[in-house]
Order: sequence, then C-alpha cells, then structure tokens
Amino acid sequence: MDNKWVYAFAEGDGKNKKLLGGKGANLCEMTRIGLNVPPGFVITTEACLACLATPERSLPDGVMAQVRDNMAALEAATGCTFGGRDKPLLVSVRSGSAMSMPGMMDTILNLGLNAETLHGLIAQTGNPRFAYDAYRRFIQLFGKVALGVPDEAFDAEFEAARQQAGVKHDIGLSAADLAGIAERFLAVVHEATGKPFPVDPHEQLEIAIKAVFNSWLGKRAVDYRREFNITPEMANGTAVNVVTMVFGNMGDDSATGVGFTRDPGTGENVMFGEYLVNAQGEDVVAGIRTPKPVAEMAREMPDLHRQLVELRDRLEGHYREVQDYEYTIERGTLYCLQTRNGKMNAAALVRSSVDMVREGLIDKRAALLRIQPEVLEQLLFPRLDPKAKARPLARGLPASPGAASGIAVFDADRAEALGRSGEKVILVREETRPEDIHGFFASQGILTSRGGKTSHAAVVARGMGKPCVAGAEGIHVDVQARRAIVGDQSFGEGTLITVDGTTGDVFIGAVPMIEATFSDELATLLGWADALARLQVLANADTPHDAERAVRFGAMGIGLCRTERMFNAVERLPIVVEMIVAETPADRQRALDKLLPIQREDFAGIFRAMAPRPVTIRLLDPPMHEFLPGERQLVEELERLRHLRETVNGLQVLHDSVDFLYRVREVHPHVDLPADPVLVDEVIAKKEAMLKKVRALFEVNPMLGHRGVRLGLTSPEIYRMQIRAILEAAADCRREGLAVHPEIMVPQVCTAQELKTVKGWVDEIRAEVEKDCGFTLDVSYGSMLEVVRACLRADALAEDAEFFSFGTNDLTQATFSFSREDAENKFLPAYTQGRILQHNPFEVLDVKGVGQLMELAVAGGRKTRPGMKVGICGEHGGHPASIAFCHHAGLSYVSCSGPRVPIARLAAAHAALNELPGHSTSL
Amino acid sequence: MDNKWVYAFAEGDGKNKKLLGGKGANLCEMTRIGLNVPPGFVITTEACLACLATPERSLPDGVMAQVRDNMAALEAATGCTFGGRDKPLLVSVRSGSAMSMPGMMDTILNLGLNAETLHGLIAQTGNPRFAYDAYRRFIQLFGKVALGVPDEAFDAEFEAARQQAGVKHDIGLSAADLAGIAERFLAVVHEATGKPFPVDPHEQLEIAIKAVFNSWLGKRAVDYRREFNITPEMANGTAVNVVTMVFGNMGDDSATGVGFTRDPGTGENVMFGEYLVNAQGEDVVAGIRTPKPVAEMAREMPDLHRQLVELRDRLEGHYREVQDYEYTIERGTLYCLQTRNGKMNAAALVRSSVDMVREGLIDKRAALLRIQPEVLEQLLFPRLDPKAKARPLARGLPASPGAASGIAVFDADRAEALGRSGEKVILVREETRPEDIHGFFASQGILTSRGGKTSHAAVVARGMGKPCVAGAEGIHVDVQARRAIVGDQSFGEGTLITVDGTTGDVFIGAVPMIEATFSDELATLLGWADALARLQVLANADTPHDAERAVRFGAMGIGLCRTERMFNAVERLPIVVEMIVAETPADRQRALDKLLPIQREDFAGIFRAMAPRPVTIRLLDPPMHEFLPGERQLVEELERLRHLRETVNGLQVLHDSVDFLYRVREVHPHVDLPADPVLVDEVIAKKEAMLKKVRALFEVNPMLGHRGVRLGLTSPEIYRMQIRAILEAAADCRREGLAVHPEIMVPQVCTAQELKTVKGWVDEIRAEVEKDCGFTLDVSYGSMLEVVRACLRADALAEDAEFFSFGTNDLTQATFSFSREDAENKFLPAYTQGRILQHNPFEVLDVKGVGQLMELAVAGGRKTRPGMKVGICGEHGGHPASIAFCHHAGLSYVSCSGPRVPIARLAAAHAALNELPGHSTSL
Repeated sequence: MDNKWVYAFAEGDGKNKKLLGGKGANLCEMTRIGLNVPPGFVITTEACLACLATPERSLPDGVMAQVRDNMAALEAATGCTFGGRDKPLLVSVRSGSAMSMPGMMDTILNLGLNAETLHGLIAQTGNPRFAYDAYRRFIQLFGKVALGVPDEAFDAEFEAARQQAGVKHDIGLSAADLAGIAERFLAVVHEATGKPFPVDPHEQLEIAIKAVFNSWLGKRAVDYRREFNITPEMANGTAVNVVTMVFGNMGDDSATGVGFTRDPGTGENVMFGEYLVNAQGEDVVAGIRTPKPVAEMAREMPDLHRQLVELRDRLEGHYREVQDYEYTIERGTLYCLQTRNGKMNAAALVRSSVDMVREGLIDKRAALLRIQPEVLEQLLFPRLDPKAKARPLARGLPASPGAASGIAVFDADRAEALGRSGEKVILVREETRPEDIHGFFASQGILTSRGGKTSHAAVVARGMGKPCVAGAEGIHVDVQARRAIVGDQSFGEGTLITVDGTTGDVFIGAVPMIEATFSDELATLLGWADALARLQVLANADTPHDAERAVRFGAMGIGLCRTERMFNAVERLPIVVEMIVAETPADRQRALDKLLPIQREDFAGIFRAMAPRPVTIRLLDPPMHEFLPGERQLVEELERLRHLRETVNGLQVLHDSVDFLYRVREVHPHVDLPADPVLVDEVIAKKEAMLKKVRALFEVNPMLGHRGVRLGLTSPEIYRMQIRAILEAAADCRREGLAVHPEIMVPQVCTAQELKTVKGWVDEIRAEVEKDCGFTLDVSYGSMLEVVRACLRADALAEDAEFFSFGTNDLTQATFSFSREDAENKFLPAYTQGRILQHNPFEVLDVKGVGQLMELAVAGGRKTRPGMKVGICGEHGGHPASIAFCHHAGLSYVSCSGPRVPIARLAAAHAALNELPGHSTSL
Repeated sequence: MDNKWVYAFAEGDGKNKKLLGGKGANLCEMTRIGLNVPPGFVITTEACLACLATPERSLPDGVMAQVRDNMAALEAATGCTFGGRDKPLLVSVRSGSAMSMPGMMDTILNLGLNAETLHGLIAQTGNPRFAYDAYRRFIQLFGKVALGVPDEAFDAEFEAARQQAGVKHDIGLSAADLAGIAERFLAVVHEATGKPFPVDPHEQLEIAIKAVFNSWLGKRAVDYRREFNITPEMANGTAVNVVTMVFGNMGDDSATGVGFTRDPGTGENVMFGEYLVNAQGEDVVAGIRTPKPVAEMAREMPDLHRQLVELRDRLEGHYREVQDYEYTIERGTLYCLQTRNGKMNAAALVRSSVDMVREGLIDKRAALLRIQPEVLEQLLFPRLDPKAKARPLARGLPASPGAASGIAVFDADRAEALGRSGEKVILVREETRPEDIHGFFASQGILTSRGGKTSHAAVVARGMGKPCVAGAEGIHVDVQARRAIVGDQSFGEGTLITVDGTTGDVFIGAVPMIEATFSDELATLLGWADALARLQVLANADTPHDAERAVRFGAMGIGLCRTERMFNAVERLPIVVEMIVAETPADRQRALDKLLPIQREDFAGIFRAMAPRPVTIRLLDPPMHEFLPGERQLVEELERLRHLRETVNGLQVLHDSVDFLYRVREVHPHVDLPADPVLVDEVIAKKEAMLKKVRALFEVNPMLGHRGVRLGLTSPEIYRMQIRAILEAAADCRREGLAVHPEIMVPQVCTAQELKTVKGWVDEIRAEVEKDCGFTLDVSYGSMLEVVRACLRADALAEDAEFFSFGTNDLTQATFSFSREDAENKFLPAYTQGRILQHNPFEVLDVKGVGQLMELAVAGGRKTRPGMKVGICGEHGGHPASIAFCHHAGLSYVSCSGPRVPIARLAAAHAALNELPGHSTSL
C-alpha cells in the first residue's frame, strides 16, 4: 500500500501531534467534536521529512496525488471549484509542527487566486473591493513566503499607492486602488524572480507546500529551536494544513478575532480577546489596525458573541487547559480556525491553575504540572515602586506584565549585539515581526507603538515572561533616525527608559523598583506542591535579612550559611586582615577574640530569624589571600606612600619651624597633605606586612589550594573561634526560649580524618558551652561533598558526618578539571556552541559525570548511616532539571538562593509527580 | 590456666616471630636444629604489650614467677647459680621484635654481677682482669639502659682512668685499673640516680626486663618505625631474650665475631666477617677496636674456622637466605649467639639471588621475592667517573657501595636540618650510634673514622642503600670544632666532599659521576621477572636519547612521549612563540608549517630507537602561557627597552649629522649602544605583542584551564600539525623497513565528544598520508584518563578510544582538589605529619580514592571494548605499591621514567607472585 501522506480533518487523530503537527491535530480534534471548522486536510510531518531528505527537496511520490483527491473532496463539500471561474475555491496553507512556535513558520492565505478566479470571486461575492484586497494580499504573501521576494519591495509600492490615493488606513482604499496595487505587486514579483507570477492554482499549491516544508530549516525556525532546546524527539518537521478560506472581510457582518479562554495576563476567568470587523486575521495579529476588545462584540453582534462564549466553553471543557483560539465570522457564520494551549505569564498560570482546580476542571496534580517551575521567576521579578511617583512619558497597552529598565534600541540586531555585551536594553519598534525574535531574547522588555494585546510583540513577550508595552500610539518611532518622538519630546538610541507591562506606562530614566510579593494563589499552589514533594527546599542565606526573606519565600531552613561573607563586611575586614598578618599566635588570638562576639551576634540573628527551622553553617572556606588586596595594588599603594613620605619628610626638614603646611593649605585648599609623617610610616609598615603576607600566600591554583578544612586544620584557632561563636549563639537563643538547630558543616573535606579532627573540636567546645549554660544543645555535624574524593569515600565520612551537602559548583570544577572562571572566559562558549557539551555544566548539572559521583556518595553515606540526610547547596540546587535529578538520586533537600525557593518548591513537586505511573521522568 | 609469658629456647616456635620477636624465634630455631646456642629463654611480646598497657608500666602477674622458673632451669643446665658466690650465672638481656631494627633496641650484658658474684667470677675464671672488665661494662650498660644515666658521665671517668694509667687501648688497662673504673662507675650511678646501684641479681633482672619493654616506646624506636612505616600489624612490642653469658674476652683462646654467609657488599658466595680475639661482641659492632677479617682465622684458629664454616653452611641450608650471624668463642668453644636475614645492598641481593637459584637453594619465585623492588634504585645510582682520576684525600673501608657528594656535616641534628632545607650533606662522624639515625635519613652518604664493615655506620648505611666509607683512620674528626683533619690538610662544616663507598675513597670537592650499568645477574633476574609478570613495563621518554636508554633498561615500549618538551627546546621556542602570538590564522599556519618538519624528525628519531616497540605520543598538553615569559618579566624588559629607545632617540635627534655613536664607542668602548633605533622598535613591538598575549592568556587556575584537548579543540591547527607529523614520521620509518606502532593519545579528555572530534582529524589526515605513501599505517588512538569525569565516562570514551592511559598526577590533583605545587608547599607536610593522610598521595597512589576511580574506568572501558589496553603513565607508574595496585586493578601496563623501569619490572613480577596462593597480596 502507498504511504498515507494526507489526512482530511475528519480522518486525523487529534492526539497525534507528532504526525499532524499541533495545529493540524487540533483542527482534526475540533472537527471531531463538532465545532464549526472550515473543511480542510493535513499533509503530515513525515511528508515534510521525506521532502527535506531529498537532494532537490522535492515532494515524495504520492503526496500531490493525495492532495488532489483531498482538494476534490473540498470542492464537493463547499460546492466551489479550485481554479474555477465560477465560485472559485480558495484555501490557506499553514505550517504546524508538534511544538507551538508562534509566528515562527510561514503561512499563505487566499491561495487559488489568479486573474480568472478573481473574477469568479467578484461575481460570487459581489464585492470587488474585497476580492482585489484578497488578491493583493495573496500576491504579497505568496511572493514573500514561496518565492522569497522581500516585504520591503511590496511595502514601498503599497505606501506609494496609499499616498497616491490620499488615505490613511487600508480601509480607505477603493477596489480600483487595490486592483492597481495587485498589478504593481505582480510586476514586483516578475522583476524580483525573473518569471511571471504562477497562475495555475495547483502549481501555486505545490510551490506553497514545498515552501512551508522548507521553512522548517529556515534560520528563524532553527534559531528558535536552538534557543528553546527543542530536540527532534520533541518536534521533527512541520505538517501543512490546507484549509478552505473563510473571510472576515466580507463586510460588516464579517469579522475576525483571536481570543483566550481566560485573561492570559491575570488568569482571570473572563472572556478575553479582540476582534476586527471586516478584516482578515492577519490584521489582528500583525497589529496593523488596533482591534476592539471582545466585550464590545456583546453589544455590536450579540448573537455572535453568544456563539463565541459557547465556543470558548466547549474548547476549555474539552481541552481542560486555557485555549488560545482564532476565529472568523463570514457573513454571520462563526468558524473556529485554530486552537492551542494558551501561552500565559506566570501570574495567569498560577491563578488559572488554582481557579480550574476550584472549578473542578482539573486536579491538583494537573494544576501543578501545567506550570513549568522556571516561569515562576517572573513573579519574583521586581515591579515599579508605587512610591516613586514617576510621570510616564506615554502610555500603551499593558501587553505583558512586569517592569524593566534599559537603554532604548531600535532594531533587533543592535539589541542582540548590545545585549551580548552585557547591556540591558529595551527593544523599541513600531511593530515587531517574527524576524525580530533574536532581539526579544536579548532585551529586558519590549515597547511597540502599534498593535494590540494579541499582536506579535505581546504574544512573544508574554511567552518569554518579559515586560511589554504594545500599541503606545502616542509614540512615533522613526527607525531610520533611531529616535522615538512623543509630542515635543523624544529619545534616541542609548537613552535609559523604563517600561511597565503591568500598567502600559513608559518612562524616561530608570524608575525605582520593589520586590515582588506572593499572591494568595501562588501560596495556595506552592502549599499543594510542598504536600506532594519528597524533597525539602531550603535556602542559602548569609544574613538575618536574607534569612527573613527566605522564610517569606517558603524556605524550610537554611541549607548554606557562608561565614566568609560576614568576614568581608567593611567594618570587620580590618580585624580579619589583622588576624591573617599576625606574626605570633598571640597576635592572631587577639584578632580572633575581637571576631568572636561579632560572629556570635551574626549567628544569633540568623537563628532568631529562622527558629525553629534548621540552619546549616559552613565553616570558613576561601583561602586567606581572598581577604587581602592584590599584589599589584599593594605595590602601587606602597610606591605612592613612599613618595608621599619623601615629600612629607622633605617638607619636615625644610620647614620644621614654620607652619608651612597651613600656608600650603591656604594656597592649595584641595591638596591633601598628611600632618604627621609618623602616621605615614605606620601605614607603610602595615602595608609592607600585608604585601609580605600576600606574597607568602600566593597560590598557583587557588581553587585547589590552601582553603576550607585544609586551612581549618593548619590554623585550628580560626575554626575553633567559629565553632564557639555558633554554639554560644545557639545557647543565647535557647535562653530566649527559641528552638534552634545549628548544623555545623565542614568545607573541602577529602578524607575522614579531617572530619574526625574538627569533630573533636566541636565535641570539646560543645562540652564547655553546655557546661556553662547548663542545658544540652541540639547541634548536628556534617560535611560538604565538593571534593571528588569525598564522594568516593562517603562511607568513611559518614562515620562522623550526620549529614552531607553537595557543593556542586566546586564538584563540577573538579570533575571536569574546569576552572569555572577560566572555562567560561576561554573555551566553554566554544564547547557548547560546537556541541562538545550540550550545556554549560555550571548551569545544568552534569548528570552523567557529577551525578554519578553524587549517586555513589548517597549510596556510600547511607550504607554507613541508613537514611542519612543528604542535600545540595550549590547553584544547581535552584534549577528544575537538577532538582529532578536530586529527587531521583534520593536526596533529602535542595538549598538555593531565596528568590529561587518558590521555583524549587514547584520543581520538587514536579519531580515527585513525574515519578508516578503515567508520567515519564524528566531525565 | 595462667598465661604463658616465657618460653625456653627449646620450647619456642621458631616461626612465631610475632610472639617471640625475630631474635628470640631464631634462637629457639637454632636450638631446635642443634646448633650450639647458650641456654636461655624468651619473654614474649605479649608480656611487653601487657606491661606497656598498665599505667605504671609494671610487669603483668606471673611474668617474674615464670622468669624465676626458667632461671632455675638455666642454673641446672649450666651448673652455675644466679647471684651465687661460686660459679655465678651471668646473663645478657636483649630486646628483639618481629621486625629487625638494627641497633634500635637496648641490650644489657653481664647481668647478675655485683661485688659478691664478681669474686665468684674471678675464682671461677682465675682472670681478675676479665672479671673487672665485665663488671665495669655491666655497670655502664645497666646504668645507661635501665637507669637512664648518660654515657658521657661514664666515658669521662673512663678516659680519666685511662690517661691516669697512661695506656692507649682498653686492652692495656690492668685488672686494678678496671676495678678502679668499676668503683668510679658505681659512684657515677649513685650520684646520677640518688640511689646505690642495685645489687640483687633478681632485682637487676626485673629492672632490665622492664627497661627493654619500655625501650619499645623510646624516641629512637618510634622514629624508626615511623620512618619505615612499620605498623602494629608488622611488629607490636618487643620480646626479651635472657641468655647465659659466654665470653669472648676470656683470653687468647676466646674471641667474638660477626659474619655474613655471603659477602653483603657483592653477594659473592664466600665466608665474610670479622672477629676480635679476646673481646666482647660489642667491641666489634661499636667499632672501638678494628677487627680482623675472618680469612685470618683460618690461619690463626684453623679448627674454629672449620667449625665456623660448618655453622655458616648449616645456617644458610636451613634458612635458605643469606644470614647475618654473631658468635662467640669461649675458651675454644664456638657459640652462635644470633642469626637473622642479612641486610645487603642491591648488587649483593641480585647476585646472591641468581647464585642461590643456580645452586638449587631456592626457586626463581623466592629469588625475585627476596628483593624489594625499590632497592634496585641503588644499582641505578651514578658512580664515580673512572676518567675523572681524582686524587683521594683519605681512604677507609668500602662499607656500603655507591658514591655521593655533599657538604660535610658533623652531627646528625645539623644533617637533618640542612637535609630538610634541600641541601645535599655527607654525615661525618668518628663513629655512629643508634641516636644518629635521623642524620642517616637526611644524608647522601656517611663517613666514619673508626669501625669496620660491620660497624653501626656500615650496617645502617647498607640497609638504606646509602654510600658509606667506614674506619677511615687517617681522618681525625674533631666534633667540637666541626672539622676533619687529615695530616696537614683539613675540612670544615660546609666543605663539599665526595665519598665512594665502593672503593672507600674520600675526596674534597664533587667528583664527576657516570650512570650505572646493568650487571649480567640483574639482566638474568629481570628476565625471570618479565616472564612471570602480567603487567608490561613501558617507559616515559621524550627524545631519541631517552628512548635508547629506556630500551637498555628493558622498556617494552614508550607509554608516554610528551610533545611539549620538544616545543620547549631552545631553537624551537621562538617558532612556538610566533605561533602563539599570531594575529591571523595565516600567521599561525606559517609558524606551524615551520614546526611540522621539526616535529616529524623528532618522532621519526624516537620511532627508530624503539622499533618494533609501540610508542604512545601525547598531543600537546600544557596551556599556551607556559611557553611565554611571565608578565612581570616582560613588563620589566619593556621598561628597559623603552628607556633604551629614548636614549637612542635622544642621541639620534641631537647628533643626527655627526657620527656620534662611533665617538661614544671610542671613549666608552664597553657601552653597548644599539646601532639602529628601528631594530629596538621592532623588539619593543614584538615584546608588546607578547605581553598582550600573556595578559589575554592569564588564568586563575591554570591546572584547570585552557589546556590539553580544550586547547586542541579551540585551535585545531596545532593538533592537526602534530597528528600529521606523527603519521608522516611513521610513514618515513615504514619506508626504511622499520616496524613502527605509533599510538596517538589525547590529554585532558572529559567527554566522548572531544575524543570523537579529534578522531575525525586523525582519520582524515591518516587517509591523506596513506594515500601519499601507498601503504597502510599501524596506528592506534586513545585517551589519557586524568580528568575525573573521563574515568566516570570511560564506557562512552571507549567507543572511540582503543586504549586508555591514567595520568595519575593530574587525576590525584582533581580527586583531592589539591594543586600539587600549592599543597606540597602549604599544607601537605602538616597533613602527613599529623596523620590526616598516611602518605603524600603524589608519591603513593591513593588506592581508596583515585584507585576507586581507576577501577571504575577499567570496568567501564572494558564493558564497551572487552580486553581494552589500559595503562598508567603518571609518576606513580614507577612505584612498587602503586604497581601492585595497577596489577590488581587489571591494568595492561605501567609506564615510568627510564631509570625506574627495572624497579617496575621487578615490582610487576612481585604483584603477580603475591597473587598466587600462599602469598598475601601487598594491598
């Protein structure tokens, strides 16, 4: 039997998106459940792949034959004839792959038109204007998509004709104007391709199908798939949908619209969408005319509005997911042209999830799984500080919520270039097109002067969770001049602006922002997540302030408190330096005695903020030289100081008896002459001691050097001070009636003996502190696992360690022999671009290498200490894919930065839910 | 039943060294096989441990009772009475643990003497001089060992008495002199301890036993055990041997001597030893009188010499090992007092092994196992160049072969201090004592002015394989003045000297040395080793010269040829620098085109030296900045050059029209003024480009940076040049009729994709070269395993790699997160001293961590590619313990530096032999 390349809508399996593409499958599904879909058929993704696999990219045998059969069926169903002079059949040709890629693929409308069928269309509709409009649209789209004629050539002719006609909007053009435009367009194509425009509808159809197939390998599509890591397993090839044309521009009883079954900006359960009377769909999407909100239809076309509400209810009832749908009303009849799951921002996803559970539409599991954890990041974005009371320069539509500041940039290429160089940019355009997609990736936010909330800019920005203000008509964007003009004001490229996608406001300058706050719905949803997750989510926090924030984000404790941050605080650093450069143990102890009460108060503050949750404190990790200035800096400072000393000395000798300095000050009030050479000598001596120490502490490979427990063991007094500070702080808090659970964690451990030695100090100091306070402290003792050998020797380490915490940043460095700082500067970009590595392993946990070590360590640790608590506190602890791995590896908790806690909570629930039967794991 | 703490010699199990100690077990064994051993008994090591475990270190219950029973048995056997006025029984009390520790433990002779028994001894022997001599020896020894009175106090009294008597040697002292000395000694003890010398023999015996037990925890013994890694499993506690005294100093029919069953310096099968007539054993060992060679005994005491030959034959026939024995002749009767396996130098071990196999005394397995691989290092030591014809300053006995140069140092503490600071020292002493042991460890060689070839200095130096010249009587050593005087010449501390332990010569200055050559016996022995080993032994070699030497040492191929050494050669470095600083790909290619023929010739030379053995070539490994000068150096050079340029410029401007430079030269002929400022500009430009590159290449952690395959993939042209050079060289050699087997090895691999990419280049270039030469090349392709992840992903790497080679240096660094350079300077010494680590893991392979990764990798690689060739080319590849691990881990080969190849060959055989039933593994 021949391959079946083509499926009529009534034939296709609405679940088989891989074969029929998302759009095609949904058209089949809607047909099956009895919605009013224009007749049509799908050419499969298999046909696409077969076509692309041939050297000349020709359609495989049988495709066109099956297409002709299906065209005949359409003719039968509609009573029209493809290429017929009377009642000509017109179709749209649309792409559609398994994954939704909005605007990424090319579409051709009104296919089948030529000089002959045009007259049939005029005769059939009695509307020459409509027919010529359709014709000119078709020539441009076909010319562009199928024949590669650039838009600019058509746009220039169109503008010329419009100015010639003296009208402002397309709608003001007469049939004759449009006929003239069509003629001009045919000439444009002839000139650009060297051949006349194809007139045979079947030839048009074949060219169009091939063009859609080829667009799968177009730059935009390839870029998009790479950016979003869409692999061939997820989507391979595009299907082609051939659909009978219905027209929203057949008069005032015709319209076209797009809608969401709920508000995609807020998630609210209301009709949402826009429509344009007497227009084709592309007018809405491209933002050429600003459409009306759907609420107006209830007044303008009450019967059709009622039908639309029914359509919406049936779509959501069937798909149990918010739908993004398109429809056309042709002379009073409502056709549904497309539906797909609606892309929404995080707030809307959260609200609709919670609502749909309450409405009984979905269960909690579905509610959690329909939200990718990473999207919650949007909710943790800052928003404009209401107290700032900045005056907006202009206002547009609030098209994608959130706020962002950046410098204005007027084209996508420039946005990309500046974005790559680390600049924060706002992309400003009259309207955006699919070609601009790389500019979206590079920008903090989007601003357009034309188009509505369903325009390209709005849809794409919402999908990316980036703030967008659309259709700010008060702004005139002059792309050539790279300026935006608002009345008598204007700003150019490089001007710092702020867009607020929640209100639609645009500001000059950077408006102060404030942190996001949790919505009730998010709290509800994450509560469900916590109940279903097996992994606990803790936070990394180094200060009482961080700790309080972590609690607000729902952290169940602190998984990593870095004590070196405390050392680095401005007022403490001099004491730390004093400790480091100390020449004698007594001098060092003196400095440590000053640090002890400071550290004790740090820890007490954190314990108070977290009680009764556990707090894991890591003993000092970085090498000593990190607390000292660099050698070069010191050498230069000393040179300056010695020069100064000479000057001072010189002055001293020359003017010992006269008040010279004061006189100098009178003449040169800004010259800063030190009054006392002795003071300069002191500073010099101090800096010289520091330089000597810096040189003594120099390391060839500091990442693998004298740090962590290595430092702890060679300078026991430092760890002993920290241990005492922790235990005394715990005792102080216990006295205040707080339940505190400090966990003391040793960094850079590579052998059991290191751990045993420090354990001895903890036991000794704990006995002293407990004797002083008269009660028992609830303290546990554990080890970082960030050295490869520690993972391999986890069974031995677990003799003394009550818990483990993976430091996956250092562990990744050691496992790959990549120094992160060097790798990311020198070769890692080449490695990921050249696909030597799929991902930067410092961003995505390397399951095959580092993960294997982690699994060995979990098994080893729990062999010695069954059920041992094992967590992760590296940066990976906040990333969903890594969290899924941690779940599968049997970890007890993940710890991440405070703002990522909500993401981690949802990811932890996903990991648990994906483990249940019927869900494939995300590994 | 009570514990049995004491065994009579006839009772004890001669195999149970753990219980009876080595000396005790051998005394029992000799008694059992009918040799004439003085009656005695052993107090067990268990008694020692029980004693040391009590707080006051008292003897456990029952010990003294059993001792008394055994003393009664001795009385019965000898007809003498312990503490008796008539025929008093005297005993020696000697230590002896399971492991031989020469001179480490304390011994007491003539125990049982007091004022009463002394008169019995005089009556019994009719020799007052002998009796008083025995008495004064006993008082000193007991005083020192059991009561802690320092030698110096006795020595001073002895010297005073000798000078008073006006005699030169001890032998000139009369009975009355000695009686006076004994009285003085008793006073010394009384004064030092505040108590009179104990007179009750049983009290003496109990004190002596406790003193011996306590000496197990003495500083010397503890130091020795730590230095030689003697663990409690190997020897735990010392036994005490109580032996009836026999006297070699009872007249001219008495003598005492020590012997080896073969010459311990050469291994030759001849009588070897020395004796002293009318002397006690300690006189021989301490080197106080210079003894006669045993050959003289054949003339002097022919009958006793015949008995001695018989004793020797029976000892070797029984023990099947060269024996180091002590004997005493008391009034014409030969007693054997002790035997143990003889410590010999490597040459003697090798020769005696081969001889004993040929004599049918042992089999090949025993011949191999009796030699610890590391001792072969002595044979690979340099010796004095005969062509040097240096004139010796003095000559002594050739006490331990080999030659060494170093600065003279006159005491052990100083030797240790200087040795630790990296100085090469020669320890110069009048005679050495056990207290000097730390000085031996720190020295390159030993020189003494007194004592024979069995003196303390000679025995210890031979055991350590260090050159020793003993008894160089022409040298007067003045320890106080730290000078050695030879006639009218002298040298002081710090003077560079050379000792030749093979000839006994001593030289001022460093005499040139030459490499060692293989003896026929060593070749024979290593041939047996190769036949029994499973591991192959390859060499690391980077030049044709190294390759030739490796073949001489028996290498079966080259396991690691480092191409960077070739890059670093003086005449090539400029081209390499040119390549590195190249601004354009074309410039870089131009430099590489110059390097290609050079590298090709390098490889061809190595292939020719090694054919038909395999040669594994590692592609470039170090980061680029290693080929450039340091930043600071360049900055300084540039400063100087710019200053020069200014000067030149100044001259140019001022004296443009006159021949100024020539005039300057006439006045200041030594001022080096460059003739051409343009040249200086060129140099400046070059250095500036270099500095720019050095700054661009700077890395925070170079060990984990842009190097190895990371560099290969980002600069493919370098690896491609090297691959071409290897393959073209192989083709050239094939054309010459040589069988060449290059193996191309990629360093720093961490993912399979890296290996696959380079493999693509190899395949491509190989096809080109084979097309050009018209025949197929025998090339294989493999990967270093030196990155942790490579070990974890070995299964995937083995898809493309045909072999693996562990780089255990880098692997150890990454596994421990220790940068070797930093660790060994900053914290590793503290780690090994504090027993956080048992060994420096860069010296002894870390089996528990790194070894575990290696086992994972071997299993992974062979899962994909059964029987895959896996080797090791890190420094550990030449160390016996690590080789044993490699054998057990199933590796195919080890590769080490050329001079360690013989050691590795023997170690590989050991690993295989230890695996056979009846031998415990060395792990």
